[in-house]
Amino acid sequence: MQSFESLSIQFAEKFNERHFPLQPASLYEPNEYFLKLGGKRIRPVLCLMGNELFEEINPDAWYTGAAIELFHNFTLIHDDIMDQAPLRRGMQTVHSRFGENTAILAGDVMLVKAYDYLSRINNSYIHNILRLFNKTAMEVCEGQQMDMDFEQLPEVSLADYLKMIELKTSVALAASLQVGAILGGAGERNQKLIYEFGKKLGIAFQVQDDYLDAFGNPDKFGKQVGGDILANKKTFLLIHAMDVAAVNEKSKLQQLMKSTGDDKIQEVLSIYKKTGVDDWALKLKNKYLDEALLHLDDIAVLSKRKEPLHQLAQFLVQRDY
Amino acid sequence: MQSFESLSIQFAEKFNERHFPLQPASLYEPNEYFLKLGGKRIRPVLCLMGNELFEEINPDAWYTGAAIELFHNFTLIHDDIMDQAPLRRGMQTVHSRFGENTAILAGDVMLVKAYDYLSRINNSYIHNILRLFNKTAMEVCEGQQMDMDFEQLPEVSLADYLKMIELKTSVALAASLQVGAILGGAGERNQKLIYEFGKKLGIAFQVQDDYLDAFGNPDKFGKQVGGDILANKKTFLLIHAMDVAAVNEKSKLQQLMKSTGDDKIQEVLSIYKKTGVDDWALKLKNKYLDEALLHLDDIAVLSKRKEPLHQLAQFLVQRDY
Repeated sequence: MQSFESLSIQFAEKFNERHFPLQPASLYEPNEYFLKLGGKRIRPVLCLMGNELFEEINPDAWYTGAAIELFHNFTLIHDDIMDQAPLRRGMQTVHSRFGENTAILAGDVMLVKAYDYLSRINNSYIHNILRLFNKTAMEVCEGQQMDMDFEQLPEVSLADYLKMIELKTSVALAASLQVGAILGGAGERNQKLIYEFGKKLGIAFQVQDDYLDAFGNPDKFGKQVGGDILANKKTFLLIHAMDVAAVNEKSKLQQLMKSTGDDKIQEVLSIYKKTGVDDWALKLKNKYLDEALLHLDDIAVLSKRKEPLHQLAQFLVQRDY
Repeated sequence: MQSFESLSIQFAEKFNERHFPLQPASLYEPNEYFLKLGGKRIRPVLCLMGNELFEEINPDAWYTGAAIELFHNFTLIHDDIMDQAPLRRGMQTVHSRFGENTAILAGDVMLVKAYDYLSRINNSYIHNILRLFNKTAMEVCEGQQMDMDFEQLPEVSLADYLKMIELKTSVALAASLQVGAILGGAGERNQKLIYEFGKKLGIAFQVQDDYLDAFGNPDKFGKQVGGDILANKKTFLLIHAMDVAAVNEKSKLQQLMKSTGDDKIQEVLSIYKKTGVDDWALKLKNKYLDEALLHLDDIAVLSKRKEPLHQLAQFLVQRDY
């Protein structure tokens, strides 16, 4: 059993090659450009870890990991168009560098290439993996649509936000682990457990992400603290604050959402603190982390094999940057 | 062996069902809306015909046909965004009715759903079909990119235009037939022949399409005659006219491309006629049709089985509407 770090390095080495033909360069250079921007490659490494939890790494897990990573990059290219984001990882997004039409097409061909890698999987697994991959891909699209729909709504319930986060973020982590488990020969019960582990971990991760955006240490966070507040993003924090705030605090929040004043962030944060949203979020995060770990504990393999996933879960969710 | 018409009716009956979940409606209603706009469903019927050329229809051919048709609709939704087309089949395009972001996502999920149908194919065929489908899907994207690139160029060579048409249009017809042949148990030689038949037929079809846009009977054509000329589209006709026109006619053509005058269509047509582009196009069409039919003749099955494809080829390419 190898650690996340060790598998990350191995995956990056294999993945760091050309994935697309040379011609037409006007289509494929944008794809190669975007892949070179890098990323943490969390999903394919989860696939490798899900595999190694049960069995030595199946050679098909490398193809599958590449497919998962290309799928993720396809969603980023298209999401960046929809969000009109000029930058990703400090560099120009595909549409801002190459134009929107090319970005649509580059995303499309990235998705096809993901399926090209999946088509190389052995007969014994290909049906199960394709089925799970397709189901997850549809869910990720549904999550993105819900996220866009929420921008148009005055308020969103916690249940709806949770559903959106599950679809947009969690199921891809869950499915990456399960696909690996399939390649490792896991039975159905174990497959379900590792999927649930990934899903709960994904939610815990998002709670933390929302928390850090408001309460993170600016020296460590890397992004502007309060970015979600400035953008009036409906997050775990804002939704819960709206739910529990007293009438006058709630109307203050609603007023602040219309403002663009300099003290907007500070004032929203002070309501968050007054209503105890910060503590609530930490508890919520730990609740989902605990649920994730219970599912991991329940998987019928020697606990020693689970150590890398345990460590990864703690690392992903306890980080304070 | 059934005719194109008979298989069309059967396919339409099976395909005319809901393909997407009910929720989120903001994502899936646009998909259902677009599929209801209809279409000739040529590609899935080619798949059924390719199957029946060799063997009774394999139940998987219906799924595969659905996948092929959804793939085609995915390309239409995204192409309409890129072309900023307000209408398709007289109705609003997805992006003009539901917004561009939703159209991007609706196209994406249409493509995933195509793969969902493919994932149901039996083990014995799934690898070959996925490989051909993915290769073709990438080529279709390449063709669309080349088409967009050509808009920015002052001139395009006949060879480049032909390559673009092959990628954007022909290979999808060719692959639909070959996928059917795979499901019908055809050997590799026969698969290659039917692919080439489809590819040449696709080119003949496009030559005719370009021809009819300029010289079609307005009462039968359904679209505005001369639309390509007005839009300065680089077609078989314009490219060849530029190649063979005398110096003064070529500079007249270049001038006309900058004009938006009322007599633009008539003047371009008169140059086309003077340079014999109309006859040349009809000969070119027949050349590709003949090549297509030679490949069909060469396929090692009883000629009787080939009759429906023979008739379809004649019908598709001889039509004057």
